[in-house]
Amino acid sequence: MPLEPERLAEIERLREESQTTRRVISPGMEARLYSVHDVLDHGFVRVIDYMGNDSSIVQAARVSYGTGTRSVKNDTGLIRYLMRHEHTTPFEMCEVKFHVKLPIFVARQWIRHRTANVNEYSARYSILDREFYVPASEHLAAQSSINSQGRGDTLEGKEAARVLDILKSDSATAYCHYEEMLESGGGKRGLARELARMNLPASVYTQWYWKIDLHNLMHFVHLRADSHAQYEIRAYAEVLCDILANWVPIAFAAFEDYRRHAALLSRPAMDCIRRMLSGERVTQETSGMSPGEWREFQSKLHR
Amino acid sequence: MPLEPERLAEIERLREESQTTRRVISPGMEARLYSVHDVLDHGFVRVIDYMGNDSSIVQAARVSYGTGTRSVKNDTGLIRYLMRHEHTTPFEMCEVKFHVKLPIFVARQWIRHRTANVNEYSARYSILDREFYVPASEHLAAQSSINSQGRGDTLEGKEAARVLDILKSDSATAYCHYEEMLESGGGKRGLARELARMNLPASVYTQWYWKIDLHNLMHFVHLRADSHAQYEIRAYAEVLCDILANWVPIAFAAFEDYRRHAALLSRPAMDCIRRMLSGERVTQETSGMSPGEWREFQSKLHR
Amino acid sequence: MPLEPERLAEIERLREESQTTRRVISPGMEARLYSVHDVLDHGFVRVIDYMGNDSSIVQAARVSYGTGTRSVKNDTGLIRYLMRHEHTTPFEMCEVKFHVKLPIFVARQWIRHRTANVNEYSARYSILDREFYVPASEHLAAQSSINSQGRGDTLEGKEAARVLDILKSDSATAYCHYEEMLESGGGKRGLARELARMNLPASVYTQWYWKIDLHNLMHFVHLRADSHAQYEIRAYAEVLCDILANWVPIAFAAFEDYRRHAALLSRPAMDCIRRMLSGERVTQETSGMSPGEWREFQSKLHR
Amino acid sequence: MPLEPERLAEIERLREESQTTRRVISPGMEARLYSVHDVLDHGFVRVIDYMGNDSSIVQAARVSYGTGTRSVKNDTGLIRYLMRHEHTTPFEMCEVKFHVKLPIFVARQWIRHRTANVNEYSARYSILDREFYVPASEHLAAQSSINSQGRGDTLEGKEAARVLDILKSDSATAYCHYEEMLESGGGKRGLARELARMNLPASVYTQWYWKIDLHNLMHFVHLRADSHAQYEIRAYAEVLCDILANWVPIAFAAFEDYRRHAALLSRPAMDCIRRMLSGERVTQETSGMSPGEWREFQSKLHR
Repeated sequence: MPLEPERLAEIERLREESQTTRRVISPGMEARLYSVHDVLDHGFVRVIDYMGNDSSIVQAARVSYGTGTRSVKNDTGLIRYLMRHEHTTPFEMCEVKFHVKLPIFVARQWIRHRTANVNEYSARYSILDREFYVPASEHLAAQSSINSQGRGDTLEGKEAARVLDILKSDSATAYCHYEEMLESGGGKRGLARELARMNLPASVYTQWYWKIDLHNLMHFVHLRADSHAQYEIRAYAEVLCDILANWVPIAFAAFEDYRRHAALLSRPAMDCIRRMLSGERVTQETSGMSPGEWREFQSKLHR
Repeated sequence: MPLEPERLAEIERLREESQTTRRVISPGMEARLYSVHDVLDHGFVRVIDYMGNDSSIVQAARVSYGTGTRSVKNDTGLIRYLMRHEHTTPFEMCEVKFHVKLPIFVARQWIRHRTANVNEYSARYSILDREFYVPASEHLAAQSSINSQGRGDTLEGKEAARVLDILKSDSATAYCHYEEMLESGGGKRGLARELARMNLPASVYTQWYWKIDLHNLMHFVHLRADSHAQYEIRAYAEVLCDILANWVPIAFAAFEDYRRHAALLSRPAMDCIRRMLSGERVTQETSGMSPGEWREFQSKLHR
Repeated sequence: MPLEPERLAEIERLREESQTTRRVISPGMEARLYSVHDVLDHGFVRVIDYMGNDSSIVQAARVSYGTGTRSVKNDTGLIRYLMRHEHTTPFEMCEVKFHVKLPIFVARQWIRHRTANVNEYSARYSILDREFYVPASEHLAAQSSINSQGRGDTLEGKEAARVLDILKSDSATAYCHYEEMLESGGGKRGLARELARMNLPASVYTQWYWKIDLHNLMHFVHLRADSHAQYEIRAYAEVLCDILANWVPIAFAAFEDYRRHAALLSRPAMDCIRRMLSGERVTQETSGMSPGEWREFQSKLHR
Repeated sequence: MPLEPERLAEIERLREESQTTRRVISPGMEARLYSVHDVLDHGFVRVIDYMGNDSSIVQAARVSYGTGTRSVKNDTGLIRYLMRHEHTTPFEMCEVKFHVKLPIFVARQWIRHRTANVNEYSARYSILDREFYVPASEHLAAQSSINSQGRGDTLEGKEAARVLDILKSDSATAYCHYEEMLESGGGKRGLARELARMNLPASVYTQWYWKIDLHNLMHFVHLRADSHAQYEIRAYAEVLCDILANWVPIAFAAFEDYRRHAALLSRPAMDCIRRMLSGERVTQETSGMSPGEWREFQSKLHR
């Protein structure tokens, strides 16, 4: 339950109001505005505001290329052309603002994307809620034995129970102590909030407003909806993908074809493909690639 | 006449359309959307899109400071508090997109502001219009004899006439030659557009879409509407000020009081003021300031 | 003890080596290179590399202003002029890289400065050390009763003891559980590192390489060495100030006079000063300022 | 001849001096420091300062990944791994500063790269030199008849002569008039420099200091040394490539394999390759690609 009933009612009231505007709109975004999209156990993503739609990308490109672009058959063709050739600036001409609730360890990965605007809930100023991320059982993964940075199988039985027990009891204790340290009155002075918060684990939820342009949002999603990203941030990135698909359907489809599901093939990999297509049998030994590169190459070819 | 009749008619059609939105609106911006605001002899500024209004600043601040901010009496008080204490991130939560037509030498100063998104008309791809900036007679200034980077009195009479004659005839010649070099057909091949353009003077007009957040726009205006800025870019910055006053009237009033018309007084200057207020007569010699600093200090005190 | 003996020996070895270079050097930085400057109980700041010195600022300004700047009497005068008039770009021409060890709650404030490059220790990949920030007794402050975002008096006696007890025992428990969850072998599979870390409190130490230009470093220090900044980040900012004073002594002195210890006075505040200097007795009621503004104004005048 | 003899002598003196430093050095950069690398007819690139070398990338990566990275066989392997997997932040840990002389129309493309620091020669403050770019005869290209943004064959004979004549005589006239408008004395007041400069064509040379990190420099070079970039900026980008190869030979080799000469293949393109490798004959009609995409795909396969 990420939001209290009174906040949900406020959101419903907001959604019932509407105004008249001369600006372009995106029907897919209008449908989503303010609504709560649940993520993980207590998190959410809400669209708070947006600027532009697919036509804004076209419009910005046409100011660059002038009347010449009229010759491109249609807007879809132009957007796909821009995406394919990494002409990124027209995609910067759309903007979106989200309200996100997320665990601090996810927030710490997220904030590494510098080309965005952020206003975070201040735990110097205010008191954090008693909400901690505890993974669902299917996400309670063991350390991968192959990949130092990845997850292996799911923990089960007693092992899983012990981990959940630790996570729940340590966060409960930490929050009790947080409250105790803050408590004042009757002669007792509370510890400064800016100090007390440091006792809370990185699984505690924070929230922020996050504003970013479309190009940089697609770059974020490219990295964070990727299978190598940590599951917990990927859960957010996947919701952002759904929102992108509704906001700018043409640009998002182009992004899926030319970026998200595209493959960057190195110079040696392209050489191998050319040799293979001309009938040569290429092995790792004759490929000019290291064993690791060759494995990645084979996986791009679905072999 | 910066725009042809057919483009003006298109703008009028755009302004007549309206949509329904759940987003917040700014009435002052709705009134301005798409309209042409003339600047210099052939330039203009048009608002193409915007996101947010004064309430968006408040909303972002309240996510940071939590319920604590409810105690600030009202939104105006909060916005003024944020501006006064250089809490700049809530002002980044509004965004605006302009269509600007401007001479290249102005564009070269403008682009130095890096925190913005730009799509410029491409002279590799398209042909530039025959439009050159020629100063109105009251802006035809002599080099300042005091300030290496400034203007002195206005040129007059034969001196002014000679300058205007040079500017007009050189740009006319350059444009004729530009067209001649580009011309193709009947066996003649035209020079590549990306080369031909380099013969045009920096007074030729270009255009771009420019998107920026409110905080950075106020910073731009602070530097470029300043009396030390070159008149030609100041003319644009002043139009941007008018637009700001309509878009976010509360934030703009705070900006005027706490930034634009505020004074940054150095440590020695503050020392002098304290001494002066306690009755001491302070001169440049006893001030600890260089003659230049003292002059600037006196001017801040309107002496 | 922030670093093990073998790391300290490695640093000493590094400091003994030297090379020949054609680049400009800063003697103050050469003396500091690689050394550990302790901050808080387990943190540190180390200078890893730097580029440029005071002369680099002058050199960049002279490329902008051409031979004209030769007329400024000397380099010190030019640097002070640039700082006074907010000509910030020449200060961007110096760069510095630090190795910093700091608690996560400090890192979360620090990273909000976006114009910098960062490589942080990855707790997805590696195991965090058993090091937690515990405030020294003189920094164990109560919540301020006036300022929602500040500290009041120091806690003492039983109150202080109880807080220290909580901070120490909760972090010890969390670290034991962190190790237990990670432990594998003998049939037991460890929890993924990227999950286990979320049980650690925000007082745990992390470390990063942080690279920034001189202008943005001075801006960081301006905000974070300020009396309103949280003590724990201020402790780092003050070490950065000492380093700045050694690296670019002329620029740093100018920064102290014209930025760090300067005062930004609003339009109404400047009006009041002018009235006061002309002999008028101005009170809050006649000042045009709110009570809060008036209080801040009086404090700038040391009244 | 981009520099006068006295400036060249000053550079030689600079190159003869050397200091002792504890910082890491790059022998390839030391050899190049301050020297003039000619570009186009009057332009140049000079390395003014640098920070870091290949080992700095490794060092930054090891702070992120901790001891785990020790297992990667050697530094070369680690740098190649980072490049291949787009782990870009360690490459931001090196920095370089250039002095560049370049025509204004090239400067206008160059400045679009926002993640850099710039100090440009100010034509408000100082007087521009009488130096204009005039293409060598082999670069005097016709407009491409296929690509709206490209060049076709070289102009020859009378056509070439006419273009060269226009470029030379218009710039000569413009410069004469620039000097005439600026001229003062004997009762005549000169036009303000900030106005007079706008009569000069975009082929006039300017100069700047430009500072950028290694990651962003490689991105710049990726776009600007590309065959689709305008020849005149490519000429600079190619000199930057030579410098990169000397500065960070391992990183640059990785960049060449995994970025510069790599190919980004879309989802449909990868599908086609898999089908082709399994023996299917795929044509544009059965490829799921547009004719334009298919053409680009064939060219990536060197067909």
